[in-house]
Amino acid sequence: MQMSDLNRLFRDLPKADAQAEASAREREAQLTKPAGALGRLEDIACWLSAWQGRHPPRAERLHTVVFAANHGVTAQGISAFPSDVTHQMVANFQAGGAAINQLCTVAGSTLSVHAFDLDHSSDDFTEGPALSEQALVDAVMLGMEAVPAGADLLAIGEMGIGNTTVAAAIAHALFGGAAADWVGPGTGVDDAGLARKAAAVSAGVARHKAKLDDPWQVLRRLGGQDVAAMVGAIIGARQNRVPVLLDGYVCGAAAAVLHALDASLLDHCLAAHRSAEPAHTAMLARLRKTPLLDFGMRLGEASGAALAAGIVKAAVATHTGMATFAEASVANKIEP
Amino acid sequence: MQMSDLNRLFRDLPKADAQAEASAREREAQLTKPAGALGRLEDIACWLSAWQGRHPPRAERLHTVVFAANHGVTAQGISAFPSDVTHQMVANFQAGGAAINQLCTVAGSTLSVHAFDLDHSSDDFTEGPALSEQALVDAVMLGMEAVPAGADLLAIGEMGIGNTTVAAAIAHALFGGAAADWVGPGTGVDDAGLARKAAAVSAGVARHKAKLDDPWQVLRRLGGQDVAAMVGAIIGARQNRVPVLLDGYVCGAAAAVLHALDASLLDHCLAAHRSAEPAHTAMLARLRKTPLLDFGMRLGEASGAALAAGIVKAAVATHTGMATFAEASVANKIEP
Repeated sequence: MQMSDLNRLFRDLPKADAQAEASAREREAQLTKPAGALGRLEDIACWLSAWQGRHPPRAERLHTVVFAANHGVTAQGISAFPSDVTHQMVANFQAGGAAINQLCTVAGSTLSVHAFDLDHSSDDFTEGPALSEQALVDAVMLGMEAVPAGADLLAIGEMGIGNTTVAAAIAHALFGGAAADWVGPGTGVDDAGLARKAAAVSAGVARHKAKLDDPWQVLRRLGGQDVAAMVGAIIGARQNRVPVLLDGYVCGAAAAVLHALDASLLDHCLAAHRSAEPAHTAMLARLRKTPLLDFGMRLGEASGAALAAGIVKAAVATHTGMATFAEASVANKIEP
Repeated sequence: MQMSDLNRLFRDLPKADAQAEASAREREAQLTKPAGALGRLEDIACWLSAWQGRHPPRAERLHTVVFAANHGVTAQGISAFPSDVTHQMVANFQAGGAAINQLCTVAGSTLSVHAFDLDHSSDDFTEGPALSEQALVDAVMLGMEAVPAGADLLAIGEMGIGNTTVAAAIAHALFGGAAADWVGPGTGVDDAGLARKAAAVSAGVARHKAKLDDPWQVLRRLGGQDVAAMVGAIIGARQNRVPVLLDGYVCGAAAAVLHALDASLLDHCLAAHRSAEPAHTAMLARLRKTPLLDFGMRLGEASGAALAAGIVKAAVATHTGMATFAEASVANKIEP
């Protein structure tokens, strides 16, 4: 596949299954609770039915996928941590010692970690395109293929020192405003680092400005392999009718690329949480997503997405496990 | 025990264990993540350590308790459902068909349901005190004794047709404002019912006004057995160093009685969620509690509390299960 072929991925994508969604709504109205009393849990169960294309929905096979990559823009001194940490954290994931390992255990989710060649990062986007066309296509394809076809739900996240700078550059390119609007402390950079981060984002967007009308070029020139793989995973999940939980700011930048291509490409995705990264709030508003959780988390690793998977499980458990008014012989409202 | 003895329950209550909390904070700083990157999850782990009085904290033995009672004020036509539903729902809990059964299963929580005599409700507070002094004391004691001493976390909730009216009356008595500020649709009453609800709350508070300086009298005259038992459960949990998740509006009214007696009596409690009952937002603000979840739920049954238990489990799992920087050989920040 070539870069010019990427839009073909969107041909014949599954749509929401209106029949399955209607069946879910009908059942919700019969369960032993006042109509609507489970609030957003009811909406989640119906949304899951719509995108899984079946009723009842299922939340048994949960999978979490983390893409790891390094980023040339770290040469600009934009991170509180050295790039070596990406490699060290991948080893930590594999040894089971990271936050995402514990969160997957609690959620009952399997976990896969896909690390790109961490010794050969993407190029510094202030000096040229971050990725070649082939590297972009390869990363998208890898992300698509990382989706287990039989999963009931996919939590998507990343690990990559420097990637909140990458995300900020993508957001600045797609959404406009000032570079400073889209940068934040990330893993905890100090004020001088934050200023370097804004300068790098500004320089990157200025350098590539003539080519940024195409969201794929935004992803290639300002993105990185982790972000491109998340784009692929969102597409791959849609192809396989696997609903998605989007993690935080960097995952949101991947989603924003697809949103710019066609907003309906995110209809099978929920925003798992609002990150502490300040610009995530504006990003979520642009994506028209209301986050499930708001705990001031800013770790990445799909941590917010895996945490929110428990909410989706609860939505399905109530939807499928509760008795109906008829089954439980419970009176439904006072007859007028 | 007599009503005049109830304040003795607060003698020698455990306080937060500063040493355990400090140990938890120290460990959080060593885990393989940027400092603070798990946001509120870190605070929850430290809070749990403080109130359990041990480090590491545990979240293995979760228990959910639901108190069910009927309310004489339903004679005022304030609910969308008949009082028979309280009994029917208790049977549904026992048969495993209610929302709370499914949510406890997802959370890995045991569940106990304590039903008061549902054929003999509390009295209509617009005509006299809801409870006798002895009935109040008995209900508080029952709530205290319903707390399993060895639990790591307790989710508290209720079932009782008419009890959002009871909660509104308590809130109006304790917090002032207008009766209409504190009433809402509850299980789904229509506009005429809502007007009757506000009228009943206003009449009840006016009738007992001379006696409402004492929060225990607020509970006796305007409350009910379910609310009094939740007050007891919050106290019993504190005595046993069991941290608490408060459910929604009716549980919040129980907490408000304790808050009026001494605000520190709620320090071992977290607000699990913001209910869709409109006045819950103002109540949470008065209690100075930031809810964990905000899904527009309004079911009661401890449903929000049991759902939030999964968040506490995740906080403990990350706190106890993650590797430290030293263990995982991960670099902690760039040396300046």
